[in-house]
Amino acid sequence: MTFADRLNQAWEVSAGLLCVGLDPDVDRLPPEIAADRQPILAFNRRIIDATADLTAAYKPQIAFYGAAGREPELAASIRYIRERAPHALIILDAKRSDIGNTAEAYAREAFDRYGADAVTVNPYMGEDSVLPFLSRPDRGAVLLCRTSNPGARDFQDLMIEGMPLYRRVAERAARDWNGGNNLMLVVGATGPAEMSELRRAHPELTFLVPGIGAQGGDLEGTLAAGLNPGGAGLLISSSRGIIFAGGGSAAAIRAAAAQLHASINRGRPVAARRQVG
Amino acid sequence: MTFADRLNQAWEVSAGLLCVGLDPDVDRLPPEIAADRQPILAFNRRIIDATADLTAAYKPQIAFYGAAGREPELAASIRYIRERAPHALIILDAKRSDIGNTAEAYAREAFDRYGADAVTVNPYMGEDSVLPFLSRPDRGAVLLCRTSNPGARDFQDLMIEGMPLYRRVAERAARDWNGGNNLMLVVGATGPAEMSELRRAHPELTFLVPGIGAQGGDLEGTLAAGLNPGGAGLLISSSRGIIFAGGGSAAAIRAAAAQLHASINRGRPVAARRQVG
Repeated sequence: MTFADRLNQAWEVSAGLLCVGLDPDVDRLPPEIAADRQPILAFNRRIIDATADLTAAYKPQIAFYGAAGREPELAASIRYIRERAPHALIILDAKRSDIGNTAEAYAREAFDRYGADAVTVNPYMGEDSVLPFLSRPDRGAVLLCRTSNPGARDFQDLMIEGMPLYRRVAERAARDWNGGNNLMLVVGATGPAEMSELRRAHPELTFLVPGIGAQGGDLEGTLAAGLNPGGAGLLISSSRGIIFAGGGSAAAIRAAAAQLHASINRGRPVAARRQVG
Repeated sequence: MTFADRLNQAWEVSAGLLCVGLDPDVDRLPPEIAADRQPILAFNRRIIDATADLTAAYKPQIAFYGAAGREPELAASIRYIRERAPHALIILDAKRSDIGNTAEAYAREAFDRYGADAVTVNPYMGEDSVLPFLSRPDRGAVLLCRTSNPGARDFQDLMIEGMPLYRRVAERAARDWNGGNNLMLVVGATGPAEMSELRRAHPELTFLVPGIGAQGGDLEGTLAAGLNPGGAGLLISSSRGIIFAGGGSAAAIRAAAAQLHASINRGRPVAARRQVG
């Protein structure tokens, strides 16, 4: 199955656009889990069990596994997603980038070692640092475009002949790097005007949208700005707002995920809710 | 000891500006080592033994350890450098970048888990993605500025009000982020004109210079463009050109490192060769 087919399947089976971030900061794990021999895996299993039917994609943030030296728990968490939510896309949030032969090593790490479907990629180093993540028809890359953090302004918004850098990144990616229809863009929920502009310019691209919740992004504005004409084209990601809801109990996690899943769907045309993008 | 003092000590004790990249691509390991239970560690010990007195810095490329699932061998290699070459800086080449709380997790990975002195960082996400790597006075960050790969042209060279993006990155970093005197820039050997310009604008900054060797960068041009007025200010990095010299035998590795160490010093003012920057 191609990457684009996998994405459509994920939207369809989950009847929604929700992406759940698996960012298991070890300092914030629920106390009854912190004592587990594999506390991160235990916490992720709880999250996956509570959200499997609601989730189009899971996005583990590799920094939290790396900081804790818990790579085996990342691998096991991904295997558990495959078991419990085989429809869900797995996006390894690693923001990788390097010269060609090194980028290939990163692609092997994401796709072969961990078995992720996609990986987030930083565009600063240009074409040869991006293409190694796009060479497999069944895997994809999510290129940083306009991110959700305050520092996004520092360089991404700089104007180059009347167009901000993030738009240049999107133009180049859309024109030259998406031949396999397996490239998405990271577009933060904290910049609806920027998202609107990007949607007009690139109706065909899917945006992965962080920044709802802890970072203060606005859901209604995001949907108005980012949905494609078919009512899809987005994966709306929440991490801390879901996984640490109510201290991280299974019931609170499910409630938070269900609420966001429903809120997203309320902003979509009725016909789109069970339809692919 | 501050990061700046550590850097000066590394230049002084090694009487040179050489940085050896530890990029142990598992497909290229010497056959007698490939069968070892910890082949990457065994290869790195060989490299470190052969180059300890010649090397101001070691730069392990984390992608090769990650792709092979060999994090423990990375940690053990770094401990071995501390034993055999306590003067040498250890720069974890990871090109990390993310929003604040995630960047902090990456900093813990580099500095606490692996004990690196510095880590390479990608500027695309701006200030809050960079500062977490600069908050410890004894550790540093090496910010991507003008990289050595062909794709460097794609975005880094775009002109913003008469100044290319990579210069804007350097200006912002020098002005706002180097209060601890612990920030360096990545400036590739494949762009001597760009390096010249950066050196004129930032005489106080140290450049980590990849691209000599396999990538075709020119050493003489690099030294002419990049040395500071004191004859230092550079760490010149070679990976494949040293570690896979002569199929990766200890003698060939040492010969390649000694040759580059000497070639670098021939391009420096005599008085600078035992003097700090």
